[in-house]
Amino acid sequence: MTVRVGVIGTGMIGQDHIRRFTDVVTGAAVTAVTDLDAARAAEVAARVGATVLPNGAELIHSPEVDAVLVTSWGPTHAEHVLDAIAAGKPVFCEKPLATTPEDCLRVVEAEQAHGRRLVQVGFMRRFDAGYRQMKEVLDSGSLGAPLIVHCAHRNPTVPDAYHSAMAAQDTAVHEIDVLRWLLDDEIVSAQVITPRATSKRFAHLKDPQIMLFETAGGVRIDLEVFVNCQYGYDIQCEAVGEEGVVRLPDPASVSVRTAGRHGTAVPQDWKARFAAAFDTEFREWTGAVATGAEPTGPSAWDGYAATVITDAAVRSLQTDGTVVTVGMKPRPAFYGGTA
Amino acid sequence: MTVRVGVIGTGMIGQDHIRRFTDVVTGAAVTAVTDLDAARAAEVAARVGATVLPNGAELIHSPEVDAVLVTSWGPTHAEHVLDAIAAGKPVFCEKPLATTPEDCLRVVEAEQAHGRRLVQVGFMRRFDAGYRQMKEVLDSGSLGAPLIVHCAHRNPTVPDAYHSAMAAQDTAVHEIDVLRWLLDDEIVSAQVITPRATSKRFAHLKDPQIMLFETAGGVRIDLEVFVNCQYGYDIQCEAVGEEGVVRLPDPASVSVRTAGRHGTAVPQDWKARFAAAFDTEFREWTGAVATGAEPTGPSAWDGYAATVITDAAVRSLQTDGTVVTVGMKPRPAFYGGTA
Amino acid sequence: MTVRVGVIGTGMIGQDHIRRFTDVVTGAAVTAVTDLDAARAAEVAARVGATVLPNGAELIHSPEVDAVLVTSWGPTHAEHVLDAIAAGKPVFCEKPLATTPEDCLRVVEAEQAHGRRLVQVGFMRRFDAGYRQMKEVLDSGSLGAPLIVHCAHRNPTVPDAYHSAMAAQDTAVHEIDVLRWLLDDEIVSAQVITPRATSKRFAHLKDPQIMLFETAGGVRIDLEVFVNCQYGYDIQCEAVGEEGVVRLPDPASVSVRTAGRHGTAVPQDWKARFAAAFDTEFREWTGAVATGAEPTGPSAWDGYAATVITDAAVRSLQTDGTVVTVGMKPRPAFYGGTA
Amino acid sequence: MTVRVGVIGTGMIGQDHIRRFTDVVTGAAVTAVTDLDAARAAEVAARVGATVLPNGAELIHSPEVDAVLVTSWGPTHAEHVLDAIAAGKPVFCEKPLATTPEDCLRVVEAEQAHGRRLVQVGFMRRFDAGYRQMKEVLDSGSLGAPLIVHCAHRNPTVPDAYHSAMAAQDTAVHEIDVLRWLLDDEIVSAQVITPRATSKRFAHLKDPQIMLFETAGGVRIDLEVFVNCQYGYDIQCEAVGEEGVVRLPDPASVSVRTAGRHGTAVPQDWKARFAAAFDTEFREWTGAVATGAEPTGPSAWDGYAATVITDAAVRSLQTDGTVVTVGMKPRPAFYGGTA
Repeated sequence: MTVRVGVIGTGMIGQDHIRRFTDVVTGAAVTAVTDLDAARAAEVAARVGATVLPNGAELIHSPEVDAVLVTSWGPTHAEHVLDAIAAGKPVFCEKPLATTPEDCLRVVEAEQAHGRRLVQVGFMRRFDAGYRQMKEVLDSGSLGAPLIVHCAHRNPTVPDAYHSAMAAQDTAVHEIDVLRWLLDDEIVSAQVITPRATSKRFAHLKDPQIMLFETAGGVRIDLEVFVNCQYGYDIQCEAVGEEGVVRLPDPASVSVRTAGRHGTAVPQDWKARFAAAFDTEFREWTGAVATGAEPTGPSAWDGYAATVITDAAVRSLQTDGTVVTVGMKPRPAFYGGTA
Repeated sequence: MTVRVGVIGTGMIGQDHIRRFTDVVTGAAVTAVTDLDAARAAEVAARVGATVLPNGAELIHSPEVDAVLVTSWGPTHAEHVLDAIAAGKPVFCEKPLATTPEDCLRVVEAEQAHGRRLVQVGFMRRFDAGYRQMKEVLDSGSLGAPLIVHCAHRNPTVPDAYHSAMAAQDTAVHEIDVLRWLLDDEIVSAQVITPRATSKRFAHLKDPQIMLFETAGGVRIDLEVFVNCQYGYDIQCEAVGEEGVVRLPDPASVSVRTAGRHGTAVPQDWKARFAAAFDTEFREWTGAVATGAEPTGPSAWDGYAATVITDAAVRSLQTDGTVVTVGMKPRPAFYGGTA
Repeated sequence: MTVRVGVIGTGMIGQDHIRRFTDVVTGAAVTAVTDLDAARAAEVAARVGATVLPNGAELIHSPEVDAVLVTSWGPTHAEHVLDAIAAGKPVFCEKPLATTPEDCLRVVEAEQAHGRRLVQVGFMRRFDAGYRQMKEVLDSGSLGAPLIVHCAHRNPTVPDAYHSAMAAQDTAVHEIDVLRWLLDDEIVSAQVITPRATSKRFAHLKDPQIMLFETAGGVRIDLEVFVNCQYGYDIQCEAVGEEGVVRLPDPASVSVRTAGRHGTAVPQDWKARFAAAFDTEFREWTGAVATGAEPTGPSAWDGYAATVITDAAVRSLQTDGTVVTVGMKPRPAFYGGTA
Repeated sequence: MTVRVGVIGTGMIGQDHIRRFTDVVTGAAVTAVTDLDAARAAEVAARVGATVLPNGAELIHSPEVDAVLVTSWGPTHAEHVLDAIAAGKPVFCEKPLATTPEDCLRVVEAEQAHGRRLVQVGFMRRFDAGYRQMKEVLDSGSLGAPLIVHCAHRNPTVPDAYHSAMAAQDTAVHEIDVLRWLLDDEIVSAQVITPRATSKRFAHLKDPQIMLFETAGGVRIDLEVFVNCQYGYDIQCEAVGEEGVVRLPDPASVSVRTAGRHGTAVPQDWKARFAAAFDTEFREWTGAVATGAEPTGPSAWDGYAATVITDAAVRSLQTDGTVVTVGMKPRPAFYGGTA
């Protein structure tokens, strides 16, 4: 049975995911789209044989739509997700789930009231083969309890519109999600310190930043966020346990020896680096939806946690690096917690 | 438009490819299957909602079938492929195309008579991301003309049924195909020399073997085939050009430091190593079939060439390592040659 | 002309350095030794044909001694070094130069009063080929200004006597020295945070620790000190500049593929890891002494700086991770400063 | 006790070794030198405080000389070595021991007649830390019996004077020696095949060449010799055993990520690559001489074997790649053999 997906938001990300449903993932079809830009929606719809609907609400409630993909402008996410829950339909929401913790909690509460999981949030790192191997190693216990994680998130350049808080909100948020999952632990405090800024940035931006997180279990995480590193898109992650260290691999790439150097290419953007992770993310989500199973990817609670933790990091940045406690609600049993 | 695929042969390989058409590749459906073992065919058909047909001929000519996948017993391949050409239907044939050069030539001639390419042979290395990167580097000319290629093809163990000629026919054949493509050059002679045999083999087997090939352009290839290397499935390939060297990567894998060692896991079989290559192979083939384009993967001529070259290698092995000239016909213009 | 070296302290380290003067470094001879343990001194002296002298003072002033090596108990270092300065003789002092900043300053002042450099302190990382390559890369400017340095200093295990302050005093002190040199910058603050402790430690010890340093130029350094990591002795250092990253290599070591793993050995102690650096350290020092040149290795000022900075780190550790400003005097012109 | 070394031949290599005895190795002094170019000899002697002697014979028999280093023109080696044996003095002879097998045998016989080993031949690879680690792994038996060795010996460029036979005589000779030692096995046949020649060579030169060797024990060796590879000096060696593979490391070198590439520098000449091996070679030789022990490095027999095997390789090259049997005498018990 083919899953009929309705897509809210046909911008760059939306189109890329539509391509996945069409060309990469089996068992799904995009049957309806909507966008504030009606012309763009029409063009995309024509390409894949979908219907254009006037707005998110009509799309969500359309009998042609089994499941919803939300890739619209961030501030509209919560409303569409709440609407999908009201309609009892599975919904995949690109990050962020909502722009405030309060709105995230409204989703969390609505989903609990509904009684089963409908929401998956688009954190794709959990679907990357390398992170999954790391998790296998950590979960096996062969390295003992994890104690420290060292991470780096580097990007060649960012445009002028990228401001200092986005280092947490848009960039570090990926590590925040994947580390909570990797460690099966909660982040309880955040601190952001700012090294000398690179001269290769727009003047208003604090870049690089070093973010320090502590988990409930006492694991310490240091994360370098450097979004104008010039040389490439480079994701590093090393977890230190009581009996050893496991490290995320760089992507496999031919090595070349020429002109006195031996080396490999560094990817230039996140699309190349995480293409396979995106494919797996949508393959598994579609599989779950098709069989009526609850999604196993990042939950509404994970979306809430990411927002609260990034808020704490931003507050630390704005207060010259004070340690900010993450004010997270107790995790409900519904989401694997004890509350 | 969904490509309706008929599958001849529902053994292990056949089932694995059926899974690909069902779960991995979009735009295809398996609509008919056949197998000498009717019970097995019925079971597989039931799983994917396909029709069981009594034999290859009926399957090929069925109006429910747009394209044919041949994964039956090797000696039956040529007949099915010829039949598919007669029916004017695209056919994907697992290696070998045929068990003799003569039968391969019959396919080659039938396809030429038909006037456009219908046949693709199942050499999947050309679809591996690492080999494709190697080809990009070589084709770019940045390393100058290629001069030498060093290869190793290692397998943990083989069963008793694996005999010495299979080192060329079943194992080296993958390098033979991928190197002809990588170098865009033809192999003109073969020589097989036999080191001391490993004690970890069945007594009748010559293992390891070193195969030496020369191309028309003068490139020399050395290929270690070692099918009882115990430690893992390990594929190495290094091309030496006038200004540098390019090397196939090992698969990306987390590195672990523990107990005095720093290292990564070695894959244990070809399925894990080339899973993504198989997926790409069928994705691209399905895409070509769906749009009515000629396939771009290994052709019937490549299937013929592989058979003639492996025959030369086997003859060298059987004559104590004499250099055996490959007696290949001139390549027809139809297949990019000048004859 | 052979440099006649007198050695104060013939314990394990002293003997190892005596072996260097005897077997590894040309142009030097150990002519006199002294030790509180007279029997040990006699035994060592007999082995290398040196005279035993009753105490440091007599050794320093002996006409048989051109230069002094201080490898006695830490609290005695300052006195011997001051004595050597008074005698106008070059002196190599194992770390620490002194156990308090005040005593270090006495040495610094005495040396300035003497008018030329006589003192070298035994920080051997600056002589390691890998760190020297890092410095070359950083000094070349090809990576732009340095912004961040990530380090790890891991040791398999430590004995019960190793206490929490030693993580800074005995372990991190090596990074503190080498990073000041690598960056040509001064450390101005220190902060120590404590992850969950490993279960593989003596109960009184805080292990691992994460030390954060800031330099006058705004470079931020994070240093993991983990002295019960079990798996090996592992030194990591990565400097992030505006246009790229340079990383200290692991020691060259054969790689082995066997039993499903591909890997290399990790060194088990600092002696194996830095043997060549120690050799170079003494080769260069002896060369300078032989030609009457001032030593170019770590100076008395560097010894003072290391003590002040480790003190700041210890204070942070003892105050739950507060940021502690390093209260260093202005650097005199004599030592390359502006004061 | 200082070993007084007399040096015959003060060219580039001679001077480099003299520097080792002076600056690097303890326990030796160069007391006498001689050279056809008397002015050069005088200049070198003045630098190190040695006496100039009129010729090799006087140097060898001088009472000021305990041991002899032969670094003169190749064709004169045998005569000097024979003279040193006649004088009963240890002699270190740079490769080749002699330019013909017959002359090598004269040395072998003279040394046997003398009754104990005096001769060491200058193959330095056996002193390289990486090769020694390889030998440890192979000798441990953990990989089972060795079956195959893959090698490459690459050099950036060679001058016009370098001719095709030198690929065996001057270049491959290092692998020939180190592999005989690594495998503890004898090479019994040689075959040289010639790939397409690089355009980056002088026209008379066959470059690259692939050399195939077989040992008495059945191990097969393939060795790529490529002396105009442009990109660097690159030595590769991989031994394949029944249960695994061990590989020579590249030299440790900082890795740099910049401008889209991640990589390390490749050494540009053999001096940088094997500097430490040369140091160890002379350190161990001096140590043996000083204690009156027989040298443990490459023997006169190894010098003979290298000459016979390179001759076989040259003959194969000159006869279009025929397999040439190595006509080696049985190895005398004196040299660890059974004859």
